[in-house]
Amino acid sequence: MGNLKGACMFGQSGGPTSVINASAAGVFTEALAQADITGVYGAAHGIKGILNEDFYDISQEDKGEIARLKTTPSSALGSVRYKLKDFEEDETDCKRLLEVFQKYDIRYFFYNGGNDSMDTCSKISRYLKKSGYECRILGVPKTIDNDLYGTDHCPGYGSAAKYIATSMMEVYLDARVYDTGMATVLEIMGRNAGWLTAASALATYEGYGPDLIYLPEIPFEIDKFVSDVDAVYRKSGKVIVAISEGIHDKEGNYVAEMTVHQHGKDAFGHVQLGGAAAVLTRILGQKLNIKLRSIEFSLLQRCAAHCASLTDVNEAFMAGQSAVRLAIEGKSDCMVAFERGRGPEYRCETTLVDLGEVANKEKTIPREWINKEGHGLNEEFIQYARPLIQGESYPQNVNGLPRFAQLKKAPVKKG
Amino acid sequence: MGNLKGACMFGQSGGPTSVINASAAGVFTEALAQADITGVYGAAHGIKGILNEDFYDISQEDKGEIARLKTTPSSALGSVRYKLKDFEEDETDCKRLLEVFQKYDIRYFFYNGGNDSMDTCSKISRYLKKSGYECRILGVPKTIDNDLYGTDHCPGYGSAAKYIATSMMEVYLDARVYDTGMATVLEIMGRNAGWLTAASALATYEGYGPDLIYLPEIPFEIDKFVSDVDAVYRKSGKVIVAISEGIHDKEGNYVAEMTVHQHGKDAFGHVQLGGAAAVLTRILGQKLNIKLRSIEFSLLQRCAAHCASLTDVNEAFMAGQSAVRLAIEGKSDCMVAFERGRGPEYRCETTLVDLGEVANKEKTIPREWINKEGHGLNEEFIQYARPLIQGESYPQNVNGLPRFAQLKKAPVKKG
Repeated sequence: MGNLKGACMFGQSGGPTSVINASAAGVFTEALAQADITGVYGAAHGIKGILNEDFYDISQEDKGEIARLKTTPSSALGSVRYKLKDFEEDETDCKRLLEVFQKYDIRYFFYNGGNDSMDTCSKISRYLKKSGYECRILGVPKTIDNDLYGTDHCPGYGSAAKYIATSMMEVYLDARVYDTGMATVLEIMGRNAGWLTAASALATYEGYGPDLIYLPEIPFEIDKFVSDVDAVYRKSGKVIVAISEGIHDKEGNYVAEMTVHQHGKDAFGHVQLGGAAAVLTRILGQKLNIKLRSIEFSLLQRCAAHCASLTDVNEAFMAGQSAVRLAIEGKSDCMVAFERGRGPEYRCETTLVDLGEVANKEKTIPREWINKEGHGLNEEFIQYARPLIQGESYPQNVNGLPRFAQLKKAPVKKG
Repeated sequence: MGNLKGACMFGQSGGPTSVINASAAGVFTEALAQADITGVYGAAHGIKGILNEDFYDISQEDKGEIARLKTTPSSALGSVRYKLKDFEEDETDCKRLLEVFQKYDIRYFFYNGGNDSMDTCSKISRYLKKSGYECRILGVPKTIDNDLYGTDHCPGYGSAAKYIATSMMEVYLDARVYDTGMATVLEIMGRNAGWLTAASALATYEGYGPDLIYLPEIPFEIDKFVSDVDAVYRKSGKVIVAISEGIHDKEGNYVAEMTVHQHGKDAFGHVQLGGAAAVLTRILGQKLNIKLRSIEFSLLQRCAAHCASLTDVNEAFMAGQSAVRLAIEGKSDCMVAFERGRGPEYRCETTLVDLGEVANKEKTIPREWINKEGHGLNEEFIQYARPLIQGESYPQNVNGLPRFAQLKKAPVKKG
């Protein structure tokens, strides 16, 4: 594969994580150091910024601020949820994209996101090939949900898992101050895959975690849930339950959308406000005569850079850096993925997986990592997840509060 | 005041904070070092543990674990919400207490809590005096609410404030990733005093905080709230609102207990599930056509030792330590309080305030620290609060998660 000289474009897509900007730092740092890369651009709001010719000249950014991206959560360039039109049906988007790539001589495109973003990359790649425009396209993985196919784990997951397990330990202590009974139901993100909720098992493993964990991987049965809670409560007077927002019964009905008849009996009808934890707390309140509390970790779990995993931050940076290096070597049409080295010590290496393979698959927790009863995690999960939360990444604090990266965001001149 | 030899009893009362155990560490460390103190006991679940003769021999604890209490949230000995019977009406409780104090020769009693706990101390003190039993009683302040009278601020507040401001900054970044409009309503603890919610202004001061802040100190007007939100939204397309759980209208009706008629108009009737943020989000949804999100920081704000203020931790320890020293010097019937030294540099010194004065008062935010419009904080508040969140107290992490204190809790032998 020969040398390819030209500018590079980087974009961020999908929901925020604590480390998406660490991948940006990896891409920018490496791209600015590569002789073949003649310009380094960051797209405002992902693909939308490219279509609108709205992007920043990263060479004008202060190096210290780029480094600080490693401890700045969310998407510094702005993100987007935009479904690129299929060029077979409507060429408008892809044509416009090609126009912009040509105008700025963009020969490297790095896109940071989940499976939808890999689908976007795949479409763009096919269109540019068809048009005879040479451009190397690499996806950089990102999702707190950890559900991407073809990679051992995803940047963003380790930090969310660390936050969830840490907060769970703190909630555990909080729930135990009084010698009176109490059941606490905690709702954790994850619509189809239970990786985030499963992370609460890391707290249980340390002795301060939920007694019961319910994941979307296992069909949810309300009666069994109530009797599970009752059994733990009778034994110890305290129950902590962690549930995925996406738990659903075997017909696929989400618990969050179930409603409880106001006069005592279950009845599944209208959608109520509040998530699955609120629904289950109401059901427990009717079936068991115990004190109840429900907590949603909400979006704090995806943006809590103050409690990030150093392993995750470093791997996210590495994913961005590797994408640039591999593209320079001639690789394209792939997503950077992680592979776990064999042996007792945890090692994480980068590899590549075809964009098309990532785009349409979802990785859930293997059944054998979940206990027989379907309400907890086995040792295999702990062995898998524990290395991912190691090490602490603390933002530099000024005035007692985090000092986040402040990018200049110098617009690229429309030539 | 002469020497007084005897055992000391320490108890924890009321809701958890990140630093209540730091005060315990202060009391224990100092008491174990005092020659006049012949035994150091920790009551299980506060006053209840004393009444039940259920307490621990702290001299048997490992010194390392006592030190680790400084970074362990919640109440390591267990807490209680128990209203001691007035001895004028029913002598049972106080009589039993005297009996236990006599049996174990308890001559020093330290009680860590809020104004209810100071009321308890005050009752005990009066009863013991009446009975001619010599015992020195000192309260150690504690509340995330920061509403205790007679002290510049309360241990527990700084850490909760730091967590709230930090999380608010992270939520701010999260809320800005898309270029689409959005209003976020965040609910923060505080029934009658807005100190915790006001802490979110520290984030605004750094450039990453709420646009609007509503406190229980200012009567809440729904129409004004809606038009405030609308005005910010029209200008920037993004609004972040921080509200106290205790906001209420001028008649004293809590917003959390208001209900919105399901078909479009406001109607205040039945109590609905969910707090004030949920109610306001529903109202905004009806009045304004914008994307909405509500978040409750919930109890994470009072137990997040992973994001504690080092200033707060050290002051909480100092409060406990001072209580013991002052009692040895002969002081009694007071609560240890904080005074801010004059001068440009923040200094915190301990002083004493009468138990009776603390018991029945609540300190709210001065009107002049709140902006004219009643939806934000002035510089005076920032100057007040900022020193309290300085410095980071990180628990030691093992396996990527906090290693909390593990007390032996050796029971005191019933002699």
